[in-house]
Amino acid sequence: MFFHVQKLINEIVPDEPDPAAANALQEGLGGQFGEMRTMMQYLFQSFNFRGKAKPYLDVIQGVGIEEISHVELIATTINRLVDGSPRYQGKEMGEGRNSTPLKVALDRNGQGHGNIHHFLVAAQGAMPVDAAGNPWSGSYVYNSGNLSLDLLYNLMLESTGRLQKCRLYEMTANKTARSTISYLIVRDHAHENVFAKALESLGVNWNKLLPIPNFDATQFPEVKQLMDKGLHNQQYHWRLDGSEMAKIITGQSPSTTSEHNGGTLQVPKQAPEGVPFTPGDVRPEEFAPGLSHDIEAMAEQVMQAAKHVR
Amino acid sequence: MFFHVQKLINEIVPDEPDPAAANALQEGLGGQFGEMRTMMQYLFQSFNFRGKAKPYLDVIQGVGIEEISHVELIATTINRLVDGSPRYQGKEMGEGRNSTPLKVALDRNGQGHGNIHHFLVAAQGAMPVDAAGNPWSGSYVYNSGNLSLDLLYNLMLESTGRLQKCRLYEMTANKTARSTISYLIVRDHAHENVFAKALESLGVNWNKLLPIPNFDATQFPEVKQLMDKGLHNQQYHWRLDGSEMAKIITGQSPSTTSEHNGGTLQVPKQAPEGVPFTPGDVRPEEFAPGLSHDIEAMAEQVMQAAKHVR
Amino acid sequence: MFFHVQKLINEIVPDEPDPAAANALQEGLGGQFGEMRTMMQYLFQSFNFRGKAKPYLDVIQGVGIEEISHVELIATTINRLVDGSPRYQGKEMGEGRNSTPLKVALDRNGQGHGNIHHFLVAAQGAMPVDAAGNPWSGSYVYNSGNLSLDLLYNLMLESTGRLQKCRLYEMTANKTARSTISYLIVRDHAHENVFAKALESLGVNWNKLLPIPNFDATQFPEVKQLMDKGLHNQQYHWRLDGSEMAKIITGQSPSTTSEHNGGTLQVPKQAPEGVPFTPGDVRPEEFAPGLSHDIEAMAEQVMQAAKHVR
Amino acid sequence: MFFHVQKLINEIVPDEPDPAAANALQEGLGGQFGEMRTMMQYLFQSFNFRGKAKPYLDVIQGVGIEEISHVELIATTINRLVDGSPRYQGKEMGEGRNSTPLKVALDRNGQGHGNIHHFLVAAQGAMPVDAAGNPWSGSYVYNSGNLSLDLLYNLMLESTGRLQKCRLYEMTANKTARSTISYLIVRDHAHENVFAKALESLGVNWNKLLPIPNFDATQFPEVKQLMDKGLHNQQYHWRLDGSEMAKIITGQSPSTTSEHNGGTLQVPKQAPEGVPFTPGDVRPEEFAPGLSHDIEAMAEQVMQAAKHVR
Amino acid sequence: MFFHVQKLINEIVPDEPDPAAANALQEGLGGQFGEMRTMMQYLFQSFNFRGKAKPYLDVIQGVGIEEISHVELIATTINRLVDGSPRYQGKEMGEGRNSTPLKVALDRNGQGHGNIHHFLVAAQGAMPVDAAGNPWSGSYVYNSGNLSLDLLYNLMLESTGRLQKCRLYEMTANKTARSTISYLIVRDHAHENVFAKALESLGVNWNKLLPIPNFDATQFPEVKQLMDKGLHNQQYHWRLDGSEMAKIITGQSPSTTSEHNGGTLQVPKQAPEGVPFTPGDVRPEEFAPGLSHDIEAMAEQVMQAAKHVR
Amino acid sequence: MFFHVQKLINEIVPDEPDPAAANALQEGLGGQFGEMRTMMQYLFQSFNFRGKAKPYLDVIQGVGIEEISHVELIATTINRLVDGSPRYQGKEMGEGRNSTPLKVALDRNGQGHGNIHHFLVAAQGAMPVDAAGNPWSGSYVYNSGNLSLDLLYNLMLESTGRLQKCRLYEMTANKTARSTISYLIVRDHAHENVFAKALESLGVNWNKLLPIPNFDATQFPEVKQLMDKGLHNQQYHWRLDGSEMAKIITGQSPSTTSEHNGGTLQVPKQAPEGVPFTPGDVRPEEFAPGLSHDIEAMAEQVMQAAKHVR
Repeated sequence: MFFHVQKLINEIVPDEPDPAAANALQEGLGGQFGEMRTMMQYLFQSFNFRGKAKPYLDVIQGVGIEEISHVELIATTINRLVDGSPRYQGKEMGEGRNSTPLKVALDRNGQGHGNIHHFLVAAQGAMPVDAAGNPWSGSYVYNSGNLSLDLLYNLMLESTGRLQKCRLYEMTANKTARSTISYLIVRDHAHENVFAKALESLGVNWNKLLPIPNFDATQFPEVKQLMDKGLHNQQYHWRLDGSEMAKIITGQSPSTTSEHNGGTLQVPKQAPEGVPFTPGDVRPEEFAPGLSHDIEAMAEQVMQAAKHVR
Repeated sequence: MFFHVQKLINEIVPDEPDPAAANALQEGLGGQFGEMRTMMQYLFQSFNFRGKAKPYLDVIQGVGIEEISHVELIATTINRLVDGSPRYQGKEMGEGRNSTPLKVALDRNGQGHGNIHHFLVAAQGAMPVDAAGNPWSGSYVYNSGNLSLDLLYNLMLESTGRLQKCRLYEMTANKTARSTISYLIVRDHAHENVFAKALESLGVNWNKLLPIPNFDATQFPEVKQLMDKGLHNQQYHWRLDGSEMAKIITGQSPSTTSEHNGGTLQVPKQAPEGVPFTPGDVRPEEFAPGLSHDIEAMAEQVMQAAKHVR
Repeated sequence: MFFHVQKLINEIVPDEPDPAAANALQEGLGGQFGEMRTMMQYLFQSFNFRGKAKPYLDVIQGVGIEEISHVELIATTINRLVDGSPRYQGKEMGEGRNSTPLKVALDRNGQGHGNIHHFLVAAQGAMPVDAAGNPWSGSYVYNSGNLSLDLLYNLMLESTGRLQKCRLYEMTANKTARSTISYLIVRDHAHENVFAKALESLGVNWNKLLPIPNFDATQFPEVKQLMDKGLHNQQYHWRLDGSEMAKIITGQSPSTTSEHNGGTLQVPKQAPEGVPFTPGDVRPEEFAPGLSHDIEAMAEQVMQAAKHVR
Repeated sequence: MFFHVQKLINEIVPDEPDPAAANALQEGLGGQFGEMRTMMQYLFQSFNFRGKAKPYLDVIQGVGIEEISHVELIATTINRLVDGSPRYQGKEMGEGRNSTPLKVALDRNGQGHGNIHHFLVAAQGAMPVDAAGNPWSGSYVYNSGNLSLDLLYNLMLESTGRLQKCRLYEMTANKTARSTISYLIVRDHAHENVFAKALESLGVNWNKLLPIPNFDATQFPEVKQLMDKGLHNQQYHWRLDGSEMAKIITGQSPSTTSEHNGGTLQVPKQAPEGVPFTPGDVRPEEFAPGLSHDIEAMAEQVMQAAKHVR
Repeated sequence: MFFHVQKLINEIVPDEPDPAAANALQEGLGGQFGEMRTMMQYLFQSFNFRGKAKPYLDVIQGVGIEEISHVELIATTINRLVDGSPRYQGKEMGEGRNSTPLKVALDRNGQGHGNIHHFLVAAQGAMPVDAAGNPWSGSYVYNSGNLSLDLLYNLMLESTGRLQKCRLYEMTANKTARSTISYLIVRDHAHENVFAKALESLGVNWNKLLPIPNFDATQFPEVKQLMDKGLHNQQYHWRLDGSEMAKIITGQSPSTTSEHNGGTLQVPKQAPEGVPFTPGDVRPEEFAPGLSHDIEAMAEQVMQAAKHVR
Repeated sequence: MFFHVQKLINEIVPDEPDPAAANALQEGLGGQFGEMRTMMQYLFQSFNFRGKAKPYLDVIQGVGIEEISHVELIATTINRLVDGSPRYQGKEMGEGRNSTPLKVALDRNGQGHGNIHHFLVAAQGAMPVDAAGNPWSGSYVYNSGNLSLDLLYNLMLESTGRLQKCRLYEMTANKTARSTISYLIVRDHAHENVFAKALESLGVNWNKLLPIPNFDATQFPEVKQLMDKGLHNQQYHWRLDGSEMAKIITGQSPSTTSEHNGGTLQVPKQAPEGVPFTPGDVRPEEFAPGLSHDIEAMAEQVMQAAKHVR
C-alpha cells in the first residue's frame, strides 16, 4: 500500500522558461532509461520477487518507491520549464484577428528544439514520452526473475541514467533544469552504489570500474554541493513499517575510483523533509483549467457549502 | 513524496493456479483501461494541475495514489495465478533426457488461452502488458489540462474499467481471480462516483445514467459482500499530510439507479489496515531467483555479519 | 465528399458462430495487407494526387471508395462470426455463483485460436487489428507521390491481399467466412487487373505473370460462381458525379494465364444494388448495448415525442 | 456501401505555403484526437452496433460518414501548406553541382518546426501521422459496445478535438490553415451537440458544462462567420437512403452557456453543395508524379484511343 | 564488408514438425533478447566504436559477425519446425469443397500454442517477431558509446539469452528444436565468457557469479556433448583479414563456479567447417514459391540458355 | 555462415560535420525503405526460400549480403556527420559553471533539423531509427513465400530507396553525405536491374518504365562518375563458395529509357577491394569510450602482457 505527502523530494530552483530544456528533460522522465522506467522496473521486480532473501526485496522495492518521487520531481520540473506564452512573461501580445498567443509552438527560432505536443496536447505540462517524442513502453521493463541478472540490469540501468543526465547537464545552463539534473545525477550514483553493493554480496568485485560513467561529477558545481553532503552514499527506505535494507546497504562504498566517490553507505533513519509543492498557474490560451466564471463561482459555492456542513 | 507499507490493499483468496485467468487479468493491469493507466493518468494530471481549485487536485491525486496499490494488488494476483510447473502442484515430473518441466507453456490443451511470455520471459510473474500481449504505452495517458475534460475522461475511464472487470468476472470461477476482480469492480464504482460528483459540482447532472455499465453488480456474490460494507461510497485520501478531498466528495451518491447504488459519499478518516504480503516461492525451473548454494550461503553470511555490526 | 447507403456490398451467408475463423479474418480487415490499408492507401494517394492525368486519379480513388465498403463488409462478417455465448445458441448456461457465460473467451479447446479482446474489449465485435492482435498502423500507408511506383505498390498490395485470402479460404469451411473471403478474392483479382492495366498504359507488359498468386481460383467453388459472372473484370467507379476511370480500364484483361482469367475489362454503368444491413443482436453478458429498462423506455418516449413533433 | 463526389466539404482559402503550420495540422488529421480517429471510431461503432435503437445507429454512423469528408478536407489543406521548393514560388534556385532544391527540408530557420518526412517520404503531401510524427494507430479506436459509454467517449473525443483545434488556431495566422481549422472547430461543436443530445435522451443533463472547452469561439472571426450561419447546430445525415437521425437530433441545443451557443438542433434536408477539388501541381524535385515525357505521351495516346473506342 | 558461405554454423537434427516449438523459438530469433538483437547491437557498437582500443572493437565486432550466422541458423530451424500440412506428412487430406489444407492454422488442439501468421503471412517460414508476435524493434539496440557500459550490457544480454534458452530447452523435447537450442546455450555461455573477460581487463572480478544463470548446463545432454568439446571457451573471429581479439580473449575462463565451467579461453585459428544448407520444400497450399508450370519451364529455359552463353 | 573484412564498401569523402544531414541520412539506414530493411528482407527471403530454383535464391541472398555492407557504410557516414562539439572543431568552448559543450543538441539555429538522441543517447553515433526518429521495425520485412510477389516487392523497394536517395541528394551539398548517397543511388539502380531481370525471366517486360524513378541520375555529377564505370550494371555475389547468380543476371539491362541506363548486366569475378575503416575519435563530453586513465593504463598492460604470451 502506498501513501503520499504533497511535497517534492528536492527543491526546484526558479529560472526563465525554456521549452528546449524541458524537452531534453523528457528523456529523464519518459525515456528508455528515465525515471518512469526505473520506477516500474523495480516495482514489478518487487511484486514478482521470489524466495526468502527479504533484504534484497527491501533494497529493490525501497529504490522503486523513491523513483515515484523522482517521477513527481522531474514532471514538475518540465512543467516549470515549458512556458511559451509571452502573456505571462511580461511581453506584449498582439490583439485582434492575427493574435497567435501559441505561435511559440511553431516558431523554433528563439527556442531551439522542442516538442509541439507540449503546447498542442499537454497544456504546457509534462508527458510520458522521451526527448524524441516516443511514448513510454511497457516493453522497457526488465524482470527476469533471476536475482543476479535483475541486479546486474539495475546497475546498468542506473549507470545509463547517470550517463544521460551528465550529458543533459552539458546541454543547458538553465538553473531550473540543472537543479533537478544535478540531484538525479547524485541519486543515480547512490543507486549504482546500492545495486553494486548487493552484487558484491553475491560475488562480484567492482574495484576499478564504478561509478559508471567513471567521471568525477564534482566538476559540476551543483553536483559537488550535494555530494559534499554525502547524498550519493545514502539510501532511505521509504517504508512506514521498517525495512531490512540496511543488512546489505552498509560498509565501504563500491565506488572507489576518486576521492569523492569513496565513503561508507548509509540507510538514514529519517525521510527527507521535502519541499512544498505549488500547482502551476492557469494558462487561458491553453483553456487550462478552463473553468468559466459561472462554473468557478458555482464550484466555489459547493466547496463553501461543504465547509459549513463539516 | 511517496511512502509504502509492505501490505496489500485487499486479501487475495487462495485457489488453484490458472494461467488462462492470469492472462485475462493482465488486461486489468497493463491494458488500455487497466490500473497502470489509471495510476499514471491521475498522477500526471496532478503533477500538471493548474490553478487554485485545490480540492479537485486532491481528488484526482488521491485516487491516483490508491491506483498504485491496485497495480500492486493485481500484479500479485497474476503472480499467484501463473503457476504451471507440476513439480509444485503435487504431480509427477518425468526425469532424464526428455524432462520438460515447462511444457505447460506450449501445451494449451488443459489450460486455455495464455501468454508464453509468462513462462519464457517473466519467470511466472506479472508483466506490464495487456491480455493480448501488447505492452503498456505512454500514449494511453490523457491529460488535456482542461479540468472538465479531464474529469469527464476519468469518469469514462473508470466506467470502462468496471465494464471490463464485470466481463472478466463472467470468464472465470477461480476464487483467486474473482477476489481481486470483485474488489476492483467496487472500487471502480467508487471512483465513478468520485469523478461524477466532481463533475456535478461543475454543472452536470447524472440522474439516470450511473453507474456505467448500468448493472446491479450485487448479482455477483463477492461484489455484494463488499457493497454491503459501503465500499463503493468511500474514498480514502492516502495522504500523510491531510487532504481537501472531502470538500467535494460528500453528500448524495450520483449513482441512484438501484437500491444498492444510492447512499452517501464518505472520505474515511483511517486508511484500510491492509493484508500481509508474502513473496512467491522459488521456481528452480525458471532459475528464479537462481542463487547457487554457495552464493546463498555467502549472502546469508553477509547478512549475518551485518546484523552483528548493527 | 462521401455518402452512404445502409447496405452491404455483398451478401453474408449465415452459418454457425466461429471465433477462430473470425480472428483469422481480422487479417483481412486490420492486417498489413487488409482492407483498412488498401482503403487508406488509395484515399491518401488520391488526396495527394499531383498533375493532370485525371483518369489515373479516378482509377486510384475509385478503388479506394470501394474499399470502404469492403471494410464495412468484413467488419460485419467478423461480427457475425464472433459469438461465444451459449445463451444465444440454444444451449444451457449454468446459473448461480459459478455461472461464467463468457468462459468461452478463456477456454480455447473447442474453438481453436482466437483473440480474447473480442470478448473482453470489443463486445463480440470487429476490431482494427490483425489476426495476431497487432493494431492497424498509419505506417502501412504507402504514398510516394511517384505515379509509377504507387501503381506498382498497389498491384503488389492487391496481389498479397489475394494470396492471403486464398490461404484463409483453405483454413476454414465456415460458410459465413467463405462467402466474404470468396468475394474479396475476386475483387482483389479485379483490382490487380485495374492496377496492371494502368501500368500497361505506362509501358509494362504483364504477359505471363498475372494474376498473382498465379492460381486458378475457380477451384474454389464459391469463387467460381462469382468469376462466372465476370466480377473479376469489372470495376465500378462509386462516384455520384461521374468518373474518367473508363479511359484506362478498358480492353483486354492483363491476366491471361488461364481460361478463366482472360476477358475484357469493364466499368459498369450502375452501382451494385447492395444487401440490407441488420444490426447485431443485444448481448447482455457483454453489457451491450446495456440500456436499462427505464432508460430504454425513456429513450423510446423521446423518439415517440420527436415523431409527433415532426 | 459508400459513394463519393469529387468535391471538398468546405472551401480552402489560398495563402502562402507554410510547412510548420502543415505539420501542426497533422495532429488534426492523424493525431489521437484527429479526424482519422473519429472517422474510424464511429464507423466501427456503427458496423458493430447491437439492438434496435436504430436512430442511435443513424446518429453515430451519420457523423462517421461526415468524418471521411473531414479527412479529405484536412489532408488536402496540409497538401496545400507543404510547399518548400523555391522553384514554384517565384524565387531563384541555384543551378549546377550544389543545387539543393529540397534544402528547405533540412533548414528550419525560416520555417519553424516541421517533419522531414513531408519532403523525403510524402512528396509534399499529407501523411497518416500526428504533429510529432507518430503514425496513426488502430489502438485509438474505442468501441466498448455499451451505448452509453460509447456516446460518452464520443462526446469527450469531439471536445478534445475542439480544444486542440482552438489551440491550433492560436498557433498560426496562415489563412489556408485557419479556414480549415475554423470550419472544424464549428463542426466539432456540432458533434458535441449531437452526442450530448443523444446522452440527454438517456438521462444526462449537461446544463452548465457544454461546449467543452467552455470558450466562446466567436472570438475567432472566421469561426464567428460560420456560427452566425448556425453551422454548429446542424447535422446532415449523408445517407442516400434516408436516416432516422432526426428523431434524436432535435429541439434545444445542449450548449447553453453563451448567447452564441444556444439555438435549436437541425437535420438539414439537403447535403452541402461542396467545393471543387483540383489535384496539386507536379513537383519535379520530388519526382512526383514522375512520368517521363515519352510515357506521358504514350499515356495520353492510350487515353485518346480509349476515347475513340467509346 | 561482409561475405557469405551457403552453409549453416551448426547441424539441425531432423524430427517431426512442431509449430508450437517453432513459435517458442521465435523468441530466440526476434525477441528482445534474441539473435537479431545481439547481431544488430554488436554491429552498431562496432560501426560507432571510438578510440584506439582496437582489440575491444575486434571482440565486439567478432561476436557480432557470428550472430548473423546465428540468425541464419535459428531462422532455418523455425522453418523446419513450422510444417502444418498433412499433405506433406503422409496423411490424407480431404478433397472437394470443404478441403481445408491449412486448417491446422486455426485448430490448436493437437499443436499447442502458435502464431497464425506462420501460416497466413509467412508461408510456413520464420518471421522477425518474438514468441508473443511482437515485431523486432530498433529500440532494442543499446549503444551508449561508453565502453564499460556497453560491455556490461552485452554481458547481461548474453546472460538473459542463455536464461531464456535454458527455459526453452525445458519446454520441448523436439530434437530439431533442442539441437539448435543446445548449441545456442553453449555459444551464449562463450559470449558471456568473452564479455566478462573484457570487463575483467577493465577492473571487475566475476569470481562467484558466472555463468548467469548459475546453472550447470551439462545436465542437458545435448549441451554436455558440446561443452565436452570446449565450445563454451572458444571464440572464432570470423574475419578474413585477421583480428586482435586474442589479445583480450585469453587465459583463465571467468566462469569458475563448477567443474565444467572452468578452463582456458581460446581464439581458434580456423573457422568451423559449417553444414550444407538445403532450401525448404515447395508448399503448394501456401502458393510458395507459386511458379506455374509454364513459368517454371520458361525460367528453366532462361537458365539453360544462360548456361550455354557462359 | 558470414565473414567480414574490416573495410568499407565505398570511400567516404571528408567534409564538415553536419548533424542535419546526418539525421536525413538516418532514413537511408533505419527507415522503412532503408538499408536495414533491404538487408533483413532479403536475408529472411533467402533463409525461408522454397524449391529448386537455386539461381533465384542466389540472386536474392547475394543482394542481401551486399546490404549488410551498405548498413556498415551508411552507419559510418552518419557517424562522421554527427559532430557537434566545438571542442573538436577548432572553436573555443567556455569553461566554468556555464560551460555547455553539448549545447548544440538543443540549439537548432545553426544546424537545421536533427535528432537530440544523436547527442543524448548515441554518443554522436548512428542509430537504428529513421529521419523522423521512428525505430526500425520487424514489421517492415516482407516475405510472402511467393517468388513472383517477393521479387516484385523487392523491385518496388529498391525503386523507393532510389527515389528517397535522389531526394536526399537534393537536400544537402555536404560532400560526406553526397559521396555515400550517390553510391547508394547507383547501387539501388543496380538492384532494380537485378530484380527486374529476374522478373523478366518469369514473364514481365519492363520496356518503358525502368529505372524508377525514371530520372537520368547522371545529372548528379557524383553519380555520373560511378555510372560511367558501369556500377549500375554490376552485381557481385559476395559468396566465398561461388554462386549461380550469373545464370539470371546476364544480358541486356532492363533499364533502357536513356542513353546511360542501357548496357549489359554483369556478375564480376572479384569482390571490390574496399576502403580502410578507422574508428571515430574519442568524445570526452559524451563519456565515450569513457575509460579512465588508470583503466586505460591497465587495459594497455593486459594487452601488452597478452602480446608477450603469444
